[in-house]
Order: sequence, then structure tokens, then C-alpha cells
Amino acid sequence: MAQCFDFKQIGVIRTPYIDSAPYQPVTDDEGEFRIVLSPEYAEGLADLDTFRYIYVLYFADRLRRKAVMTERPAWTPDTTVGLFASRSPARPNPIGLSVVEIKKVAGNEVLTSGLDVFDNTPLLDIKPYIKDLDSKNDANYGWIDNLPGNKQHLLLHIMGIPHDY
Amino acid sequence: MAQCFDFKQIGVIRTPYIDSAPYQPVTDDEGEFRIVLSPEYAEGLADLDTFRYIYVLYFADRLRRKAVMTERPAWTPDTTVGLFASRSPARPNPIGLSVVEIKKVAGNEVLTSGLDVFDNTPLLDIKPYIKDLDSKNDANYGWIDNLPGNKQHLLLHIMGIPHDY
Repeated sequence: MAQCFDFKQIGVIRTPYIDSAPYQPVTDDEGEFRIVLSPEYAEGLADLDTFRYIYVLYFADRLRRKAVMTERPAWTPDTTVGLFASRSPARPNPIGLSVVEIKKVAGNEVLTSGLDVFDNTPLLDIKPYIKDLDSKNDANYGWIDNLPGNKQHLLLHIMGIPHDY
Repeated sequence: MAQCFDFKQIGVIRTPYIDSAPYQPVTDDEGEFRIVLSPEYAEGLADLDTFRYIYVLYFADRLRRKAVMTERPAWTPDTTVGLFASRSPARPNPIGLSVVEIKKVAGNEVLTSGLDVFDNTPLLDIKPYIKDLDSKNDANYGWIDNLPGNKQHLLLHIMGIPHDY
């Protein structure tokens, strides 16, 4: 069954995160978040600014550990869950996926809301996030629902947002 | 800048679509939709059934044409949009992304709602779809909003759902 596929870098994601990054996008984080496409793909950004949100797919190239099938999420280290029930970047294929808001499209660049990746992360794809197709109002929190504690507080941990309580 | 990455098949998606497939997931479509993981990854499915929705990432291996930077979506051929503002599978990296509902997880298999891929499509990743992180209530339809006609009707076309009107 096992086949391999060659994927290529089509651009780079610039963020303020040099040495550490949050676990999930932080909308109100400080700093600039910029997707820079290789010039040969710039024309493909036409009409993208008609969307409010996009999917950004990238290669998690800073990963130093191998994928294991059970994960202990960094924000809840006493919990063990299956890898595919987690958003850990240490996966058989380290493809990262984030939903971010578009702020501006100009030339071969897209300015976005907070992106949870290290500076200079290789870009694999951008897709429009389309209402109804992608926004599921009856989505749930899965196993996160079973954790003790306040859900809003837990979400701060999931997203890696610094907070004082 | 250009780097290449090796991704590997971690399973296979079984669907009723042998010769044609809808453009987007069809929830109420007939037939069985089954993700079969290679046995070495089965343990990673633990706790996945606590989620209602998942992201399925796959390699669009049936693609016969090369990516071009402007697309005319099959369901609205008079409209031309930038490739990254479309969900066309003909992209620089043909990584497909679908949001589907979990029906059952058993052993190394996940039964799901309708998946818009051909039978035997190579699986790249499964990620949990987490409320708040992934479900954006204020998402829009982008350029689709500017098309003439009824939105619900257009969505049937986007999703490739057969209809009589």
C-alpha cells in the first residue's frame, strides 16, 4: 500500500515566532503574520480577498521528535490520547493546518491574523474557508469536554495564549 | 526557497466513487465511506470517536491536469477565479481536505459521512475538528456571494449534489 509523494514549498510563512510558537492561531497576538508566495504563484491569489477566512497548510519543519501513536498534549500533560485525536505536529505526515482571517492580499503576499507557526515555515497550500462547507455549527470539543475545569480557560491552554489565572 | 518534502501514504479511503466523484462531501449520499489506516497506525485512532467531525487530508492521485493559476470551477464555468480562491484539486500540491462526520471508529477503520474522493484515494492525515478553533460562525462565501442565483441552489452545485431544478 505504502506510496510516497513529493510535495514542494510554494512560499514561506513569516511570523514573530523565532524560538517558540503557540499551539494554535492566536487572533489578537502582537506582530505581523505574512504569507509570502513564490512569485510564480502570485496570480493564483486573485479573488482570495473576497473570503474572510482561509486554510493555511504548511510543513512543520522544526519538528525534532518522531510521531508516536499516543500523545500527551503539552497543555494537559496528564492526559493521554490517540495521535489522530490530537493536533500534535508530530504526525506520520507533519502537515500543519490553521484557519486564519485574511487582513490583506497584496502582490504575492497575504497578511493574516495570528498564525501558530515558527518564522520561515514552508507553505504547502492556501484554500478558501467556505461557510456551510467548512463551518460546522454542531462541532464539539471531543475528549476535551471530559477534562475538569472551565472550557474557556482550557481553550486558552489549547491555543497557547498567555494568561494570568 | 524551493524545498521538496516526502509524504507517505498512511492508509486508503474507500468510497462508492469509481469513475466520478462529487466536488465536496455529500452528507446524505448513498453508500459506505470508510477510512482504512495501515495497521501500524491503528493505535493513533484512540479517542477519535469523542469528536463529531474530523479533517481528512488525502492525496488527489487521480488528477490528470497540471495546476494553472486561474481556475474556472466545473460548476460555474463562466466564472474565472484565482487558483487559491478555489477548491480545485489541481494545485501545486494536490492535498485534498474534507470535513466529515464520524459514524464509527473500529480497529483501524473510520466510517464517515460522504467523502468527496475516488475509491482507493491515499490517506495523508486525520485531525480532530475542534469547536471554536475550526468552526467560524462569521465565515463567508467569498466570490460565490457575487454569483447570480439562489445560494442554496449554488451550494448544491459546489458540492456536486444531483438535483432536478
